[in-house]
Amino acid sequence: MTDDIPHIVIGRLPIYLRALTRMAEEYDQKTTSSHELGEQLGISSAQIRKDLSHFGEFGKQGTGYHIGYLIDQLQQILNLHVEWDVAVIGAGHLGHALANYNGFGHRGFRIRWIFDNDPAKVGQKTNGLVVQHIDELEETIKEHGAAIAILAIPAKSAQDVTDRLVKMGIKAILSYAPLHLSVPDGVEVSYSDPVTEMQRMTYYLTPK
Amino acid sequence: MTDDIPHIVIGRLPIYLRALTRMAEEYDQKTTSSHELGEQLGISSAQIRKDLSHFGEFGKQGTGYHIGYLIDQLQQILNLHVEWDVAVIGAGHLGHALANYNGFGHRGFRIRWIFDNDPAKVGQKTNGLVVQHIDELEETIKEHGAAIAILAIPAKSAQDVTDRLVKMGIKAILSYAPLHLSVPDGVEVSYSDPVTEMQRMTYYLTPK
Repeated sequence: MTDDIPHIVIGRLPIYLRALTRMAEEYDQKTTSSHELGEQLGISSAQIRKDLSHFGEFGKQGTGYHIGYLIDQLQQILNLHVEWDVAVIGAGHLGHALANYNGFGHRGFRIRWIFDNDPAKVGQKTNGLVVQHIDELEETIKEHGAAIAILAIPAKSAQDVTDRLVKMGIKAILSYAPLHLSVPDGVEVSYSDPVTEMQRMTYYLTPK
Repeated sequence: MTDDIPHIVIGRLPIYLRALTRMAEEYDQKTTSSHELGEQLGISSAQIRKDLSHFGEFGKQGTGYHIGYLIDQLQQILNLHVEWDVAVIGAGHLGHALANYNGFGHRGFRIRWIFDNDPAKVGQKTNGLVVQHIDELEETIKEHGAAIAILAIPAKSAQDVTDRLVKMGIKAILSYAPLHLSVPDGVEVSYSDPVTEMQRMTYYLTPK
């Protein structure tokens, strides 16, 4: 039913889920409206209603959304009713930051492995995980069947590692390496590069 | 001249710049085409030509783009002919990762200060920077006139710190805190949240 939903709509669902979860957990709020949600997110209420209408009827005219129900539905839509095991590739500063980030819990993900090719890092412990050598990647992932990997490695080796991940069946990659990765159809890639984000913003700024 | 250029076009310029820089620096390449650039980035060549046409004529039919010239022009458009001083807020694992990331150099940014509210972290050194107490934020930034800050702090305190940054004249914020921030018009915000990125991807995956 959902094949023709624009990617940009799918991209907003986690933002809605995050805001709703915050309303429920931080403020113990039970209901909300597309108007209130829109105000908080800088998105029009019409856009929110339209986005959600792709998936069903979640609110009622006049009473709005029941937050707990909408959270549950969004988690179902985004396949977050299971916990996804995630492999981090790269045990540098960023890899350690990811392994120690406490924002994954209860949001659908668990960092389960961390790999590096530097013998000096292999065997180090970080937040209860032991850094494994990248040579153990295939065996470890094949045995446990992970679907998601995070690349926290330099651009230089990112495509080679990506090819290995794809070959062993990884279906989603979040890359912090500053380059575009080539992957076959059916593999999702998201990018996070602080420099391109800041360069986008400096367009709007006036230099001193 | 450029006020009506869609944000999404501006957002692609740093991606073009990054790919062109890589062609020049890694492969010593002198010229390229919208076709080659598009192939590398998974963007149609027509889109690339259309995006660039907002800013002038950079290529010639048949000979394509001179990479060095296009890099220079994109840097001008994005205000990267100056180096921007950046303040990092938060000296946890992520703050250290940012302070130690060597991908900022030659791309327009320099991490100049790092702040934290934890007395145990204040005074620590990371990649040549000394962690300052957040109480010194206003004085330090006002004296030096930074325009960009990176938030590497939990959601809880992010809006308060944002309000302080805006008040002292910060015009662009890259936030790793997992929430939407309220800022007045004229202040740019970019977000980086690994969880929302991964949740967007799990929509397309089949759980075990």
